[in-house]
Amino acid sequence: MENNKLDQGYIKKKNLHLVLKLIKTNKSISRADIVKMTNMSPTSVSRIVGNLIDLGLVRETETYSKGVGRKAILLEINLKSILTVGAYINKHIVKAGIVDFGGGILYEEKIESEIDKLSYDKIINIVCELIKKVINNSGVDESKIVGLGISLPGIIDYSTGNVLMSTQLKWKDIQLGRCVEEKLGIKTIVDNDVKVEALAESIYGVGKNIEKLALISFGRGVGSALIVGGNIFRGTTNIAGEIGHTTIDPNGALCPCGRRGCLQTFIIEDNIIAEANKVKKTNSLLEVFEYAHNGEQWAVSIIDRCLTYMCITINTVICMYNPDTVVIKGSLIKAFPDMPRLVEEKLENLTWDQLKGSFQILQSQLGSKAHIVGGATLALNTFCDFD
Amino acid sequence: MENNKLDQGYIKKKNLHLVLKLIKTNKSISRADIVKMTNMSPTSVSRIVGNLIDLGLVRETETYSKGVGRKAILLEINLKSILTVGAYINKHIVKAGIVDFGGGILYEEKIESEIDKLSYDKIINIVCELIKKVINNSGVDESKIVGLGISLPGIIDYSTGNVLMSTQLKWKDIQLGRCVEEKLGIKTIVDNDVKVEALAESIYGVGKNIEKLALISFGRGVGSALIVGGNIFRGTTNIAGEIGHTTIDPNGALCPCGRRGCLQTFIIEDNIIAEANKVKKTNSLLEVFEYAHNGEQWAVSIIDRCLTYMCITINTVICMYNPDTVVIKGSLIKAFPDMPRLVEEKLENLTWDQLKGSFQILQSQLGSKAHIVGGATLALNTFCDFD
Repeated sequence: MENNKLDQGYIKKKNLHLVLKLIKTNKSISRADIVKMTNMSPTSVSRIVGNLIDLGLVRETETYSKGVGRKAILLEINLKSILTVGAYINKHIVKAGIVDFGGGILYEEKIESEIDKLSYDKIINIVCELIKKVINNSGVDESKIVGLGISLPGIIDYSTGNVLMSTQLKWKDIQLGRCVEEKLGIKTIVDNDVKVEALAESIYGVGKNIEKLALISFGRGVGSALIVGGNIFRGTTNIAGEIGHTTIDPNGALCPCGRRGCLQTFIIEDNIIAEANKVKKTNSLLEVFEYAHNGEQWAVSIIDRCLTYMCITINTVICMYNPDTVVIKGSLIKAFPDMPRLVEEKLENLTWDQLKGSFQILQSQLGSKAHIVGGATLALNTFCDFD
Repeated sequence: MENNKLDQGYIKKKNLHLVLKLIKTNKSISRADIVKMTNMSPTSVSRIVGNLIDLGLVRETETYSKGVGRKAILLEINLKSILTVGAYINKHIVKAGIVDFGGGILYEEKIESEIDKLSYDKIINIVCELIKKVINNSGVDESKIVGLGISLPGIIDYSTGNVLMSTQLKWKDIQLGRCVEEKLGIKTIVDNDVKVEALAESIYGVGKNIEKLALISFGRGVGSALIVGGNIFRGTTNIAGEIGHTTIDPNGALCPCGRRGCLQTFIIEDNIIAEANKVKKTNSLLEVFEYAHNGEQWAVSIIDRCLTYMCITINTVICMYNPDTVVIKGSLIKAFPDMPRLVEEKLENLTWDQLKGSFQILQSQLGSKAHIVGGATLALNTFCDFD
């Protein structure tokens, strides 16, 4: 129970959001359908829909006949009524895109470069220039853009937009949100990339209508995020889900975080490739998979160990969060078409019996689009308060 | 956003609960104080307080002067207006107690025996007889008892009251809730012991006014629970927090769950004592600590390894849940007065830097009372819907 005043304004807002969500997630819906789905009175629904139409967020479309002689008007989201921008930064890429009110990317561009070799002010300039370019080239009405959401791998102070730490970008205490907001004049929010991906998958991707979704990203790092009822579970300082730094072996390999045997030391792309290079010149994950596929035993052993620790990661997520759905993604999942099947097979032996049947494993639906869609969705949720 | 109708009834109830909570947690509070704390209108507060007085849950006490010439009437919870029963079962003990509306235990009794050697129907009989005895001997007005909450170590289907599995009691698929409810005629709810302890600590113990509290129990098993805003975080099938069965070493020691290298195999009481017995006849944790204290190096090494994995457990909890407070309790914490200090010292090296300063470690305030208070609180929350 929150220590807040609960009043009629609160209810009105909640009900308006609920109706808006229903129209968003159901492509053809009538006022009568909303009445049925919410148990609200027809009068309330009509009033709320009227408000949404007045705000320009919803419009009426065709009329259809339902049953004998009954006619109903269908409602749909006015996709271009509100736009937000999503941007993403990692060590190799900067991306930005314009996202409509329904989570669709209208236009996007990217810059591939060795981003992590640049100073933070150079990177911030690149990000801002790219966003300006995307807005210009997209031809959208700039006045409809209500906000910008940027995501990156790292620990983010979500309330200030400060990047506390990003190992990948070699950043520490960078006021990213404030800098970008000043340069572009667009309200800006910053968050961790895995959290933003999970949000996107939960609202527009594989996790639609799923109550408790956990996403695990296996790539340059290992991270997880939990979405409960459409909201990101952040914890106290927005660090919840940092499974990569749970300790597996206190005497294990050194992690860039300075501690030994973090879970991610067993799995991350760089470590797998480094291990492969002890036996044979290897440049990519794909090569390791190819060696294994060709029956080179040392490569089979690398992949097998990697699979084991991926399953251990999934087991920790389901023990701690007990979600109904786990979405797995990242370069390790993408590198080899068999990977999801291999994970599921191995998981059979590594999952605690009590958890079997309590969850499903799914693959990402949005893929690499999740960062832009997720950043934009976060901006929409943060800056759009339909009062 | 839940897909529920939000109406005036909902708000009324929420506001009533809020006022009740404020009166419960603030021993001396006036209507004017509540107005200030909630921003509700004086009229609303007076109406709600009136309702609570009519229901018998709250009463007026003394009048006090505040400032010049102003008088206010103080409010307090009517502790005996509603009673619930809390009960607890583990392999060595059955406990039951009557708890008042303020979380105070009015009367309790326990039976110490080798419970796990008995059949489940015998255990259920013992529990029911103990509860009847406690109700009779306490002299309370039985009509004021609104529910019973039982907790035990195991996986519980919280919605049905069925115990799906309890390794300690050697139970599988036992309809505990239904059986007890039929025998006693008291509405009964069943839950996992660690979740119930965490709830008790969060409402009446060390976690009062803490937003995100995680509790870790180190004892015959290792379990954790998360309380967010006073509510138990359950996950999809009430298994969230089962950290004891996260895998640390896929080639490690066998766990009673049938898998290898579960985190709890490194820490639990039985394994520590079994390890000590390889060197010297040992009957209890305390003996291991005494050997270590006397400088026997093998015992020092056992304790040191145990501390390491306790810290690994805490690190996993803070990485996954990012709580503001971690409460540590259980036989391993209790066994040796120095234990909490040793844990905190070791944790300094085993915590990820990014998490340092984000949480505090506290010890239980309710101790072994948490099971009875927690079970009773759960029953109160479940069966008392003040409409």
